[in-house]
Amino acid sequence: MVMSFEVEQKFAVTDLVALQQRLLDGGVQWKESVSQTDQYFAHPCRDFARTDEALRIRQVGLRNFLTYKGPKIDAATKTRREIELPVQDGPVAGEAWRKLLDALGFKPVACVRKQRRKGVLLWQQAMVEIALDDVAGLGQFIELELAADSQTLQTARERILSLAVHLGLTDAERRSYLELLLECSSPEPSEDS
Amino acid sequence: MVMSFEVEQKFAVTDLVALQQRLLDGGVQWKESVSQTDQYFAHPCRDFARTDEALRIRQVGLRNFLTYKGPKIDAATKTRREIELPVQDGPVAGEAWRKLLDALGFKPVACVRKQRRKGVLLWQQAMVEIALDDVAGLGQFIELELAADSQTLQTARERILSLAVHLGLTDAERRSYLELLLECSSPEPSEDS
Repeated sequence: MVMSFEVEQKFAVTDLVALQQRLLDGGVQWKESVSQTDQYFAHPCRDFARTDEALRIRQVGLRNFLTYKGPKIDAATKTRREIELPVQDGPVAGEAWRKLLDALGFKPVACVRKQRRKGVLLWQQAMVEIALDDVAGLGQFIELELAADSQTLQTARERILSLAVHLGLTDAERRSYLELLLECSSPEPSEDS
Repeated sequence: MVMSFEVEQKFAVTDLVALQQRLLDGGVQWKESVSQTDQYFAHPCRDFARTDEALRIRQVGLRNFLTYKGPKIDAATKTRREIELPVQDGPVAGEAWRKLLDALGFKPVACVRKQRRKGVLLWQQAMVEIALDDVAGLGQFIELELAADSQTLQTARERILSLAVHLGLTDAERRSYLELLLECSSPEPSEDS
């Protein structure tokens, strides 16, 4: 059996101009930029934060998707079950799905809006997938990703780490955008409580 | 404000041959027959039987729909909120939606399979909608339906009742097919319990 992995690291971008210059110098090939809006929902009787699950409506341009993410199966590789199903296009359909989820007791908890620019960069004979995200309320992030199997996993890890060093990226961010947003919006501890 | 109503009565069919003859004599115009499969789901933490709600995947031929039915707003007219949204066609997509609902904790409770033949019949100057259903596990039923507003409600009721008499239909069935199926499949009371 061949196990497949996604080796991925994410970093907050502190100097966008310098980073873009390094990517250009490295020969990055940019693809189109897309706007993604992810509306996340709370389950009516399960604490998704505790069960490490998520349900969201993802809007990519005019397209809509309903996505369920299961708990991580394996902490090291961030592998998780994901079911993403397309639903009807357009804002009217998106609103109808929000109403259906609301009727079933799912409540909106947070909305992650980002502008994502994807690209690829050749690094040590491998095509590394790049995503440069501008996340509303959080700022800029870059993700580096390589697919691997059991045989190539260690090499892939080393490639991603060395590319990060080359690009001047430090302090990898392990939390998801949703987790970061929920931490931002947590109420301050109150003396009255 | 104009209130609109659906005046509807359903009857178990005891003599299908005689009924079909009476419908033909009355000049029924049959439309195409369609196969409908409704998979109903239990909510992970709400008793739909108690809250008078329902969630189902409806399959009509190759088309799939996700349908939420809210509680009846008004017992007299059976009016209820309904959100029905098309999802991707075909059995593979239907199965993917079942998996997504299962992952969220919704469990299949019953499946209503029927062959439905729709038609119209002119009766006392009104076009009455007819549905002749062959429901797996339950047998044959006929539904008579007329749309009405506040002004025509009483007339519509009288028309449906007199057509039922004319067709030899007695003992209107108020329960839904889902309710009838769940009653059928309830375990027998046990002396050990």
